[in-house]
Amino acid sequence: MPCFSDRFRQELDLLMRWRRDVRRFRPDPVSPALLAECLEAFACAPSVGLSEPWRVLDVRSVRARQAALENFDSANAQALSGYSGEKAKRYAGLKLSGMREAPVQLAVFCDEQADKGAGLGAATMPETRRYSVVAAITQFWLAARAHGLGVGWVSILDPERLCLGLGAPEGWRLVAYLCVGWPEEASETPELERAGWETRRGRLIVEVR
Amino acid sequence: MPCFSDRFRQELDLLMRWRRDVRRFRPDPVSPALLAECLEAFACAPSVGLSEPWRVLDVRSVRARQAALENFDSANAQALSGYSGEKAKRYAGLKLSGMREAPVQLAVFCDEQADKGAGLGAATMPETRRYSVVAAITQFWLAARAHGLGVGWVSILDPERLCLGLGAPEGWRLVAYLCVGWPEEASETPELERAGWETRRGRLIVEVR
Repeated sequence: MPCFSDRFRQELDLLMRWRRDVRRFRPDPVSPALLAECLEAFACAPSVGLSEPWRVLDVRSVRARQAALENFDSANAQALSGYSGEKAKRYAGLKLSGMREAPVQLAVFCDEQADKGAGLGAATMPETRRYSVVAAITQFWLAARAHGLGVGWVSILDPERLCLGLGAPEGWRLVAYLCVGWPEEASETPELERAGWETRRGRLIVEVR
Repeated sequence: MPCFSDRFRQELDLLMRWRRDVRRFRPDPVSPALLAECLEAFACAPSVGLSEPWRVLDVRSVRARQAALENFDSANAQALSGYSGEKAKRYAGLKLSGMREAPVQLAVFCDEQADKGAGLGAATMPETRRYSVVAAITQFWLAARAHGLGVGWVSILDPERLCLGLGAPEGWRLVAYLCVGWPEEASETPELERAGWETRRGRLIVEVR
């Protein structure tokens, strides 16, 4: 069993603190070898019943990117209409995705029909399959950040329409649309906090039962 | 922006490869200070709209533990009845939770009514709030493992009944029940693979669009 040092733990803490949801990317490309190395973090993620239900589409063509961007623009306009006054003004000023610039864009799905794992652990809480995909995304995010890459998770999307737009196989459910690239800037503070939308609570409150 | 070394990245990769879903724990206690340190990984996790919807109950009392264990036993018996023949025999032989031994047990919820973040990013995909909780759990899992602690995620539970059994506030939805403690053994191979239930695919297949 490998033993980890205090120094490693301090750096891991630093990595988690400097991970950000990145929406501002430099146009520089990401090498396919580097992307492949970061994506290896998917394969060792935890998954319910060892179902490994994660599926990834590398969204590269103009047509596919256009479908994703139009989807975001429409969902974002609708979301804006749900705010009013000062909050609407502030929402309209936020940059909520890097979909126009990010050199790499990945659509990440859960295969709801995957029979790998034979359903173990997913009978009463089938959402655990989607949660396995999220765990894999989180590991990828940290691995990418350790290489200096930024990742931004876009959720302002109509998921079913995006499945159609990207020609996802039947039974795949969208979990995340990820923008990946070299960040324009770095910060320990979330962009939404810097933009005055919301502040971090800072510490976890644990109640005892 | 902190720069991470090749050495750090290799250790991070090792950490992800040796992370396991642990179900066999030694009875030794986990110090509250160490647990608190690992739980800090929650506070710096990504969350949709900076909603930070994670809520944690430390399940300590005999009564609360009994409620959780009975819930698992009943869901597990029902799951077993869904298999037949060789698969049923194999399922019955699996150890699927460390709830009888784990010194620390945490019930992790998503507060579906949290207004922090003002709904940003969660209009079309409200499940992203739950996904934020999963990202926090994944970071905790890695932080704990970096200290040598094992974490096991139990999903063979009736989530609504467990909310009642633990007296969770209204609007909290169970995401995971985590067993935490010092693992009996270490392995690079998932327990379900060693037990012959399922094997890992090993690599991620990425399709291009």
